[in-house]
Amino acid sequence: MSSASDPTGYPEQPRWDESPSNPQAFKVLDRATATEVFLKLPSPQQYRLLEEMPLGEQRLWMRVLAPDDAADLIQFAPKDERSALMAHLEQSTQREVRALAAYAEDDAGGLMSPRFAALRADMTVDEAIHYLRRKARDGVETIYTAYVLDPDQLLVGVVSFRELFSAQASAPVRDVMRPALTVTEDLDQEHVARIIAEHNLLAVPVVDSEGRMKGIVTVDDVVDVVQEEATEDIQKLGGMEALDDSYMNTDLMSLLRKRVGWLAVLFIGQMLTASAMDVFQAEISKAVVLVLFVPLIISSGGNCGSQASSLIIRAIALGEVHFTDFWRIIRRELVSGLALGVVLALLGVVRIYLWQWLFDSYDHVGMLAFAIAAALVQVVTVGTLLGATLPLVLKRLGLDPATASTPMVATIVDVTGLVIYFTTASMILRGTLL
Amino acid sequence: MSSASDPTGYPEQPRWDESPSNPQAFKVLDRATATEVFLKLPSPQQYRLLEEMPLGEQRLWMRVLAPDDAADLIQFAPKDERSALMAHLEQSTQREVRALAAYAEDDAGGLMSPRFAALRADMTVDEAIHYLRRKARDGVETIYTAYVLDPDQLLVGVVSFRELFSAQASAPVRDVMRPALTVTEDLDQEHVARIIAEHNLLAVPVVDSEGRMKGIVTVDDVVDVVQEEATEDIQKLGGMEALDDSYMNTDLMSLLRKRVGWLAVLFIGQMLTASAMDVFQAEISKAVVLVLFVPLIISSGGNCGSQASSLIIRAIALGEVHFTDFWRIIRRELVSGLALGVVLALLGVVRIYLWQWLFDSYDHVGMLAFAIAAALVQVVTVGTLLGATLPLVLKRLGLDPATASTPMVATIVDVTGLVIYFTTASMILRGTLL
Repeated sequence: MSSASDPTGYPEQPRWDESPSNPQAFKVLDRATATEVFLKLPSPQQYRLLEEMPLGEQRLWMRVLAPDDAADLIQFAPKDERSALMAHLEQSTQREVRALAAYAEDDAGGLMSPRFAALRADMTVDEAIHYLRRKARDGVETIYTAYVLDPDQLLVGVVSFRELFSAQASAPVRDVMRPALTVTEDLDQEHVARIIAEHNLLAVPVVDSEGRMKGIVTVDDVVDVVQEEATEDIQKLGGMEALDDSYMNTDLMSLLRKRVGWLAVLFIGQMLTASAMDVFQAEISKAVVLVLFVPLIISSGGNCGSQASSLIIRAIALGEVHFTDFWRIIRRELVSGLALGVVLALLGVVRIYLWQWLFDSYDHVGMLAFAIAAALVQVVTVGTLLGATLPLVLKRLGLDPATASTPMVATIVDVTGLVIYFTTASMILRGTLL
Repeated sequence: MSSASDPTGYPEQPRWDESPSNPQAFKVLDRATATEVFLKLPSPQQYRLLEEMPLGEQRLWMRVLAPDDAADLIQFAPKDERSALMAHLEQSTQREVRALAAYAEDDAGGLMSPRFAALRADMTVDEAIHYLRRKARDGVETIYTAYVLDPDQLLVGVVSFRELFSAQASAPVRDVMRPALTVTEDLDQEHVARIIAEHNLLAVPVVDSEGRMKGIVTVDDVVDVVQEEATEDIQKLGGMEALDDSYMNTDLMSLLRKRVGWLAVLFIGQMLTASAMDVFQAEISKAVVLVLFVPLIISSGGNCGSQASSLIIRAIALGEVHFTDFWRIIRRELVSGLALGVVLALLGVVRIYLWQWLFDSYDHVGMLAFAIAAALVQVVTVGTLLGATLPLVLKRLGLDPATASTPMVATIVDVTGLVIYFTTASMILRGTLL
């Protein structure tokens, strides 16, 4: 996370997907561009580049990194190499990095930079501006937001450079500063991102349990966090574990490892469908026609479930819905499910009568159509409710709602759908088809 | 988009999901909080609040909005009310809004603010700083990034306040400024967001085809854009149209409208499964056992397809993969598909022999297991390839890759999977079960 205060970019600069993890391609870049690219790479790729370099080069590149990025890179490196990488850094930086390395990478503490501009409440605005002018030359993350600390490092207020700049030069900072919105060290990054986004902050201060200021998280990091979290959710929704790196930079083996786990679980779950149908062998052999509609009916339930779960999972991630909304959501999704079920049931009936009219396909067409329609309404409603409830329940249990992936919902709905379909059919068709 | 330069927030402030669209709850907020909340609401909710207000109040709130937000709100309002809303604004703002209203809401032009700080190349750093100090008091979006324009409004360079602040007071701005990374008015917001994020910019200048500067897009808007785009993709991936507003703020009717369309399409597509199985009625009635594995086999293909499509759709959205990677991706997914297919096939064989051993369920168990395994490998491979190819092809055709939703991929795989399964089975089992 390089400073948010650099307003220019390099048009000729490679895009991430081109910015190479292979040192050959990296070497050809001129120094300035190489640095720009290196600073932008995710930690895994930065580490992969360092691996390939002679020690001298390594030291050089480690020192380019901001302490928080250095901490991330070191946390990514294998345990036995960490101290070596750490040794490349200056003493002062080493201390900062050790402090940061104590935090989980996806907490506010892991995301923050310890280099912020601190003011005292009794400084005059003029003094503050001159102090920040000096700071502008050395490595604070930003001078555009300054934090007012008391002698015990307690955060008493915050002031934007713009506010100082348009205030009375002789006024004390105390009169210009405003109460700060803070986050705690252990707040998860998704939540930090939401706070910065909602309040349109350039940076948010991170404080410990005593209110002592530890660092700042800047908005430019938040954009990455938001992308990252969305990517994780989308991959989980697809029925797999989230990747640690971009798709193209993930080698085939790790890619397979991330995918095969859930597939196996879902496959074993799906085996219940075979057992479920086993139970209805008698009905099936008597009326093979029932089987023709199995995929149509269970997949309809799955599709509605996947709509509901995607909606709710995203709404939870954005903090739009909470467990307290549970019953309101159930009501909405129950009505939706019934409505959608009726629509699909009608389409199903049309399909059956159309085929009957065209090919005279079915005996007892009326009863059959009725059975299919009745099953569809139930399966779709159940599917929708399952899709909406599962993420909320997972969240409630402290698990990741995105685990209620589309394939997982579909699998659960397939099994329940089969049972609903065949029980409904055998009740309605007993005496006619069965 | 309220200014990115406000570093403080209001801890007591309601979260979006609480910040009420119903004026009753809104009225109880004190002025300062109410303004904060209002500025943060998405345009649809801002409009809904205004609707309820007396004209006097309306004027007041319209004037709180930045020109770009006013433009968004007016674009959302019904045609016949727009001029009335416009009339609430000051003349100068009206001109700005009219200019902005010409852009699509999700282009750079629709996202930008026309209020930026402009400098001349021959000013001294000291003059520039004093000029920005004056600007800090009135409504420019940010003073932290200033744009150097020539007399024809052509953008010649950019300089951060921090750079000015740490430069020689007597030096001309020309010597401090750097080449600017720009975006064109019609660049879509997703792309703008990616540029700002990758280059860690506070703001990016928007220029017209002649290179004349039109406005700036600031990083705080980008966070919203990134969230918005991810939400749209997740909802589309779930097999529905993206909502215009949050889940909770979308009334049931619009919610149903967004969902029923794709459901109907998918349902009609799924009807092909019934027809497909119709073709194999003979085999089915001879060996009902084959039917028991239908959901298991086709859903396995669907699950692998959904993994692949989620991976590729997200990678495309992040700009990590391009159509030029087509063959590399196909190779990767072909290998993945085969590998995953083999794993699932083995699980399937184990299941069959286990049941055989426990309940002596099947005749010709060996041939049956072989048929199921062979079908699984093919269906899973085809599913994976379809899931990976479809988004790339859609992108290539200029369509939204996210249209290759999980349910859509599953539906296509269900149909092809059935055909593969029954053809494979009838070839392998002819003479034994069939």
